[in-house]
Parts: sequence; structure tokens; C-alpha cells
Amino acid sequence: MPSKQASESRQEVDSIIQAKWLIPMTDQGLILKDHSLVIQQNMIREILPTDEAIRYFKSSNTYFLDQHIVIPGLINSHGHAAMSLFRGFADDIPLKAWLENKIWPAEGLWVSEEFVTDGAELAIAEMLLSGTTTFTDMYFFPDHVAKAAIKSNIRAHLVSPVLDFPTIWAQNSEEYIHKAMELHDNYKNNEHIYVGFGPHAPYTVSDDPLQKIATLANELDIAIQIHVHETAHEVQEEQSKSGKRPLSRLQELGLMTPNLQCVHMTQLNNEEILLLADSGVSVVHCPASNLKLASGFCPTAKLLDAGVNIALGTDGDASNNELNMLNEMRLAALIGKGHSGDASVLSAWDVLAMATINGAKQIGLADSIGTLESGKFADITAVNLDQINTSPVYNPVSTLVYSAQASQVSHVWVDGQINVKDGMLLHLNEENLKEKAQNWAEKIQAA
Amino acid sequence: MPSKQASESRQEVDSIIQAKWLIPMTDQGLILKDHSLVIQQNMIREILPTDEAIRYFKSSNTYFLDQHIVIPGLINSHGHAAMSLFRGFADDIPLKAWLENKIWPAEGLWVSEEFVTDGAELAIAEMLLSGTTTFTDMYFFPDHVAKAAIKSNIRAHLVSPVLDFPTIWAQNSEEYIHKAMELHDNYKNNEHIYVGFGPHAPYTVSDDPLQKIATLANELDIAIQIHVHETAHEVQEEQSKSGKRPLSRLQELGLMTPNLQCVHMTQLNNEEILLLADSGVSVVHCPASNLKLASGFCPTAKLLDAGVNIALGTDGDASNNELNMLNEMRLAALIGKGHSGDASVLSAWDVLAMATINGAKQIGLADSIGTLESGKFADITAVNLDQINTSPVYNPVSTLVYSAQASQVSHVWVDGQINVKDGMLLHLNEENLKEKAQNWAEKIQAA
Repeated sequence: MPSKQASESRQEVDSIIQAKWLIPMTDQGLILKDHSLVIQQNMIREILPTDEAIRYFKSSNTYFLDQHIVIPGLINSHGHAAMSLFRGFADDIPLKAWLENKIWPAEGLWVSEEFVTDGAELAIAEMLLSGTTTFTDMYFFPDHVAKAAIKSNIRAHLVSPVLDFPTIWAQNSEEYIHKAMELHDNYKNNEHIYVGFGPHAPYTVSDDPLQKIATLANELDIAIQIHVHETAHEVQEEQSKSGKRPLSRLQELGLMTPNLQCVHMTQLNNEEILLLADSGVSVVHCPASNLKLASGFCPTAKLLDAGVNIALGTDGDASNNELNMLNEMRLAALIGKGHSGDASVLSAWDVLAMATINGAKQIGLADSIGTLESGKFADITAVNLDQINTSPVYNPVSTLVYSAQASQVSHVWVDGQINVKDGMLLHLNEENLKEKAQNWAEKIQAA
Repeated sequence: MPSKQASESRQEVDSIIQAKWLIPMTDQGLILKDHSLVIQQNMIREILPTDEAIRYFKSSNTYFLDQHIVIPGLINSHGHAAMSLFRGFADDIPLKAWLENKIWPAEGLWVSEEFVTDGAELAIAEMLLSGTTTFTDMYFFPDHVAKAAIKSNIRAHLVSPVLDFPTIWAQNSEEYIHKAMELHDNYKNNEHIYVGFGPHAPYTVSDDPLQKIATLANELDIAIQIHVHETAHEVQEEQSKSGKRPLSRLQELGLMTPNLQCVHMTQLNNEEILLLADSGVSVVHCPASNLKLASGFCPTAKLLDAGVNIALGTDGDASNNELNMLNEMRLAALIGKGHSGDASVLSAWDVLAMATINGAKQIGLADSIGTLESGKFADITAVNLDQINTSPVYNPVSTLVYSAQASQVSHVWVDGQINVKDGMLLHLNEENLKEKAQNWAEKIQAA
């Protein structure tokens, strides 16, 4: 028991998180037992053994997480948040029919500022409750997604959509690109919102706008995220149209730089894998979506082996149907082993890296988020492993990836501010979000 | 408001469950809205619209599940319950090394009556909490698994292990078979415990005992469950030893009858699929285990197409690492689509059938469990869909399979008795089970 004087000599800080197991993700395999995170303002100030933390620091916001694993906040590297309102609207249907007969017509009918706001807030609530602190989003009205993210205190990387054809968001590629630049300009000094380009896919964006995007992204050093090589059909169509595989076309147009994030990538030959590694392009793996739409298998084991940076994404709720990075990590590990035929690849550690530091790398934020280190933003997730389904614990990272449920996420901080406490959302009204979602579904289903 | 007299004329029953959505699983696609289950003793007496149920029946045990989907209790058709104590003990390792270097040595050191009791109770707690009401188990000391099941009020189908070599349970195949017969005799009048034979695999049980098992199982009309065609390696080894594929050997030995349950089945040619269909053999699909051990892909779409009965199992916690049939259904749907390349196969309804009525069929209990029908045992699971991650609901079966978490399982009944109420286990002490599990893990890890 420290004396009153000793206690008063301790420095007051904003928060102290005492963790049973702390996983910095700076080194594969590193598990710090009984360590504390000391948080000042929006930053991690120090990580040290809890007995030392108690000696030097005090805080009225001290969290005793004595059954918990504490990890960097999870990064969901691909999705369409507002599509949470289409969760379960179109299941058990192949990609082409799913898009052409269900999703695109419904989007045409329903997408609006209000739809995007309500859907994004529902999705953000789901992501925070399952431990995600940063998400990449590709959807219409990204300005409204930005507002929802700021209101909810979550970090968002918005890849502003670009298409050749008109939608409610813009009339032509010029206007899409202009709006992306405008969005970037509006948020360039905001540490919660990062803006990049989101050309939808090689088959929906032509050469001119792709080249323009490459030039602008290069100039501003911001990301380009694109759906590419999602299905064999896509690759065949491009080949019969231009004689090239989509990735070759992107290369010729100057897009293959470290700013590029290629989502899905189920069709890759060895040459393309080497090209990705050499050019520093990131791959965003979305295993649930690829399986559910029967799109194909991303060769994650080969990509890791070649040194390609792989991040992990849930895709939208319409093709998953959950924004749950714990389940997505488990699925990435399982399908990586199953598809390669090697049970030793895609370890629990590999997929946790994909969901944290690799996600940070692909946005260009590896200096700010993705690991727990002093001087980084305090984006932190705690998961309570004291449950029947996570007993016993041999290795907490294995337990986290292979056994924990999203409901075990107990605390989530973004920028040092607590968002989820004892499993409850602090800044969003759950009842209100659920009611709005059900109202949308009833309208959509009745149409 | 019914008058006092009207109220008194209503018949008193043991329980009434008022459900928002009731899925009998008698007909694919049938969703009963605002219906009630009327339970008398251990049986479902009636299913009728809630407004009628209120008119004719009353009960002091009336459950108002107005945000819930109510389904037949889930049937986990393959596992090794006591191996819950090895959850996370050996991850990211291929099947052969996993068995030979990790699992078998650890079993040799640790398996005992006490280990099986503690492990089975932990597993049963996990299964009940995630909505399972019947499980098939293949493990040593099945008599102790029976006791744990009876204590916990869960239904168990125990396939008593048979091997050629000695273990702590028996010295030779004769003794294994004798113990299986004894177990069957002990529980033949028990409606919670069903006993069958569990010859481990074609490569661990020789022709003589397999033939003997076929004869006895046929005579008693009880099940035989066997791991078979789990990996390509297994099939190759058998072919170079006997010149036959394992399934052909089982056929020659007289095992291919409706009593046979073939677990895993990742290696199947078209002829074998037809043989399974013609002989009424069931397949038990364990997608998580097959992926995690990189064993291969069970061709579920082709099997369903041929009319083969497919049940669903989690396998043991050492290779999954959870006994969560909701996640297993989702994975079966996802991998079934991904592997076949057809997003329309393995629908949410198909996998729910695999986890309910198909499981009942393979044990020979289709007249007693697996659907919600009057005259069947009241084995019932309720899942609360009123959460952010299950909002909105377009089709509750899709929401259940693709979006719900096990933590949303709110109520579970077996034999009309409530086991889980508002997500809490009523007959097992969770704290005690977790503590025992952690003590085992510490001993095992220190060895």
C-alpha cells in the first residue's frame, strides 16, 4: 500500500489501462503480461509493467482489465458502411446477379444522404462493438460518412467513389474526382478522417480517369483503393476486351505504387504476385465476401511468402453479413490454411497483423496507429477472455483469434477517448439505430 | 383482457413459449410469425398462433420472446467433448504432426476419468450456451460423458471408441467393443443417452473388429460413426496398403448402411457420392476442423445434390477451437459456396437443416427431435435478434445463420426443461468450470 505522500508524488495522467495480456504487435510473438498502457491526451505515453505504472502514475480513469487481452484497435480495411441497411437483403445469390438484380437497383431506389448517415452510423456501432477503431469506406456521400465517423469518435479512411456512369453522387468521372479532391481538402488537417480515391473497379472506370487518379494520388501521396481481380469472370472479360489482365492495365496506367490497395485479388498468377511485392502494392483480403459470393480464393499464403502487405476487410454487410473483424481474422486463418493445404500458414499472429499493423501500413498510417507503442494514437481494444468458450487459455492470441466472440470485446478507445465500456456504446444510441434500420428494411422490402 | 372466468377455463400447461419467429424446420422456407409452443412435460404439445395460445392455455412458465427466432435445438453431430481442455494447446500445425507430436502424447499423459468429466462439462456448458441440445461424442470414458450429460440435462449420442491398439480405456479391439456393448446396455432405456460404435478410422481399426461392429450395429440398429477420407494422405496410404480406397473397404466389410455416419469426407469421387446416396449413409461435415488442419474440402454441394444426408459437427475444441454451431453453420454455407463456385448452393436454410433435422436423421432420432412438431421432445433454442449486428432483419433465418453471435442465444430447453435462461446456464457452475479448465491447462503446459 503506497503511503499518502508516495501516492501524491505520482504523476496524474488521463487514463491507465492495466492489462492481463498486452499485445503490442511490434514483434511477432511478443506477449506482455501484467503491463499497463499510460495514456495522456490522445496518445500512448508509455507501456510498462503494471507494478511500475502504479508507482509512477495515477489516474481517475484507471481500468483494471485482469482477464483481458489488450490489442491495437482493429483496422477494417475495406467496406461499404451504409450497406449495413442491406444486411440480409440478398443472400445466396452469385455476384453478378447479386449486383445487377438486387444491389444496384436497390441502391438506385434508396441511396440518399439520410440512407448513408443512418447506415454508416449502424455500421460504425457494429464495428466499435466488435473492436474496430479504424475503417476504410468506399461509398456514395462520403462526406456524410465523415460526419458519422466524427460524431461516433472512430477513425475513417474514406476512398471517395469514382465511376464512369452517373449515380446520385456524381454525373461523370470528372465530377467524382472533383468531389474526392474537395473531400480531401476539407479533411486534410483532421486526424480522424483520411481521404483517398475509390475507383470502383477496372471494369467500371476507364483509362482516362484512372490515369488522372494515379497522377493526383501520387502528387498528394494519398491512397487509391480498387476492387480488382475479384472473379475469374472479371479477368476474362477484360482480356477479351483489351487483351490484358486488369492488373496489367493498372500497371500500364501507372497505378502500381505503394499508394494502391487492391481489394479481393482471387485471381493471381505468380508473376502478378511478384509484381505486387516489387511495387509495394497492398492487398485487401475479404474472405467472407469472397466465399459468400463464390468469387474465388485469394492466395494469401503465397502473397505473405512473397512479402506482400495484406490487410483484412469485411466488405459490406450486404455480402458478409457482419462487420466483425474477430470472425474475419478466424476465417482468414482457416481459409488460408484450407486453400494452401498447409495448416502452418496464416497463423493467429499473421491474421492479427493483417487486422492491425498491415491495415495501418496500407493507409500510410503505420507511424500513428496499428501497434501499441509510446507516441502513437491511443486506439486500443480490450477483449475479456474470462468465458466458457475461451477457457482455458494456453496462448491468448490463439484464444482471441480462434475462440473469442465479438461480444467479448469489453472496451474500445479511439484517440484516448473511451467509446465502448463494459460492452456498451457510449456515443451512439443503440435503440435508435436499430429502430431506424428496421424502418429502412420495411420500406425497402415493401417496394 | 380476458375475464377471470375465461382465464380460469384456460388449460394449465408446463410452459408456453411465445416467439416472434418460429422455424419448425418441417418445410424449407416456413416461418411462423407470432406463434407459440405449448409444452407439457417433456414434449411439444402444440404449436399455434400466439393469440390462440393465450385463449386456450396458461402457464406460470410463459416466455415472451418478442425479439427472438425460435428453432429446434441444434445438433452437433461430431466432437470429442473432453478435448475442450486442449482448446488452443496446438494451433497452426498440420493434422499428422498435430496428432502424432501434440495430441496423442498429451492424451497419453493426461486422459483420465477426471479429465473426461471436467472436459465434457466444460464442452457441454459451451454447447448449451450456443444453442446445442444434442451432441455426438467420440471419446474415452464415454460412461463419464454420459454422467456429465445427464447432470447437465443435454442429450448425448455416444459413439464408444474402438481402436486396434491399447489406451487407458481398453487393451484391444475386443475390449473396446465389449465396453461399447456394455454402455449400450446400461443406457438402452434412457432418453437422454444414445449409444453407438465409434471405430476411430479405417487406418486405426482392422477388418475383423470392423466386421464385428457392422454385425452388432445391424443387429441392435445403432449407429457407427467413423472418421473417413479425412485427408488425401489417408486415402493414398490405404490404397498402397490394401489396393482399395477406405470407403471401398468399408463397403466390402458390410458397413455401408443407413446406420453409418462418415465424418469429414474431403476426398470423394462421383461414384462414391452415388454409393453414399444409394446406401443411405450420412456424412458429417466439420468445416472448421477441415480448414484448420488443412485436410481438404468436403464436396457438400454435390452431396446435397445427390440426396445424401449431411449433418454438421464442430469436431473437438482442439481443432476448431469452438463448439459453436451458429459459426459452424455460417462457415458451412460460406465454404460450400466458395468451394463449389456457386453462391446459390448451401443456403441459410440448407445449413440450418444440417444442424437440426439432418443431425436427428443420422442418429435415427428423426421422430423425436430435429424439428418443432407436436409430439416431439421439447428441445428448443431461442436467439435474440434485437442487436446492432443483427439489424435490420429481412429474413430471420438469414440473420440467424449469417449474422447472429452465439452470445445472442438467450434460452435453451432440453426435454421441456430450461437449461439456459437469459443467456445464463442454470445447471452448471460456470466459475467452477473455468477454474478447473485453467488448472488443467497449467498442468498440461508445464509438463
